[in-house]
Amino acid sequence: MGKVYVIGIGPGEPAYMCGRAKEAMEEADVIFGYTSYIRLLREYFPDKHYVDTPMRQEVKRCRLALEEAAAGRCAALVSSGDAGIYGMAGLLYEVLFERQQEGCCLDVTVEVVPGITAAQMAAALLGAPLMHDFCVISLSDLLTPWEQIEKRLSLAAQGDFVLCLYNTGSRGRPDYLKRAAAVLLAAREGSTPVGIVRNAGRPGQEVGLTQLSALPDVWTDMQSVVVIGNSATFIRDGKMITPRGYRL
Amino acid sequence: MGKVYVIGIGPGEPAYMCGRAKEAMEEADVIFGYTSYIRLLREYFPDKHYVDTPMRQEVKRCRLALEEAAAGRCAALVSSGDAGIYGMAGLLYEVLFERQQEGCCLDVTVEVVPGITAAQMAAALLGAPLMHDFCVISLSDLLTPWEQIEKRLSLAAQGDFVLCLYNTGSRGRPDYLKRAAAVLLAAREGSTPVGIVRNAGRPGQEVGLTQLSALPDVWTDMQSVVVIGNSATFIRDGKMITPRGYRL
Repeated sequence: MGKVYVIGIGPGEPAYMCGRAKEAMEEADVIFGYTSYIRLLREYFPDKHYVDTPMRQEVKRCRLALEEAAAGRCAALVSSGDAGIYGMAGLLYEVLFERQQEGCCLDVTVEVVPGITAAQMAAALLGAPLMHDFCVISLSDLLTPWEQIEKRLSLAAQGDFVLCLYNTGSRGRPDYLKRAAAVLLAAREGSTPVGIVRNAGRPGQEVGLTQLSALPDVWTDMQSVVVIGNSATFIRDGKMITPRGYRL
Repeated sequence: MGKVYVIGIGPGEPAYMCGRAKEAMEEADVIFGYTSYIRLLREYFPDKHYVDTPMRQEVKRCRLALEEAAAGRCAALVSSGDAGIYGMAGLLYEVLFERQQEGCCLDVTVEVVPGITAAQMAAALLGAPLMHDFCVISLSDLLTPWEQIEKRLSLAAQGDFVLCLYNTGSRGRPDYLKRAAAVLLAAREGSTPVGIVRNAGRPGQEVGLTQLSALPDVWTDMQSVVVIGNSATFIRDGKMITPRGYRL
């Protein structure tokens, strides 16, 4: 029986990949992924057979991996971070179900291997901002209407959740973070601590701290995660801490 | 200079621990943790020096680790899952700041090492429920007023977030999940898919699927994670999938 591993490779540096992900990489006959992640993996697993496809070819990548498994081999599909968080795991299952309806890939098993997602790496670098209830929201409106994103930002702000924002900026939409900040500022103090981490756990890593009132003027890109504290979060000695509530 | 690693050891099986966590375990002179995690780690790192403390001695554990580091040694403080998500990272920093005010631990550095948290392991086992914006909420009211928890549940349900519930049950409070379900049912369809994972990634692992209307009658304990889908989440072939929104 063929198998597809959907592997979260973590932030980038192999030290943050989990053991199960390494085992799955070793076991795979062919590894499919987005060009820039494949470039990274080639360094650490040089003897493997890779097939890289450019961005926006996610469906094709899933089909190729499933065809490999349908032929009785072991395929791996890699995502950065956690394959199960905005990653390739869901799409792989959706394409699998579609292909099975067409009579293909009937004898294929799937294993999702989790990985460290950008919010976790960012949190570890910032201090300890995720000690209490939190939300993860993507600001990309490629697949989600912007009104839905704004609604979620507003409700999360009202609920005093810690917020982790993904896909905070790109060349095509430079003002999304500014618009998100305006929504958050309607419900939260301007002095709320904010952490910004670019390239968390990979070359070019940058860690910065600011506050919500300054967020509209912060520049970020698709490699940046923004973490917004709750009403108890504080910054001290360059670290962003959300108290869990223990008495010292 | 002394150092404290705050290490997320992941769900339990060492295959899901990341490489950096293993390196930090090896480097540490003394490893501090809750008794049951220390028992687990002794199996995989038998030659280390461990100090285990029972539950509710979290502050003491942090002080001991910091004193070790203040003496110029390398201490490790272990949490299950991710030390940065409801883990020991925040408390360690808080105790450090307090001790530094008293003149202790001035020459100590801290590194938080992230790990796979229960929601990620549960998601990987369930299928792919976290493909879209999600919230993580703890139902424990030991450190948070129950009204605050109910408010967050209600806002997250209104926002059509996927929800991951931690600390869903214990002997002392058997009805918390029932009360949470009632709040969620006020805003979401009874047919909303729900996944329940007990002992994710450790011995005794159990994976189950149900729907929101049945959640009030589900029994869980402190080792259970409950994942509630958004309005697009579906169950097929025993897997719980939240579509990301790609066109197939």
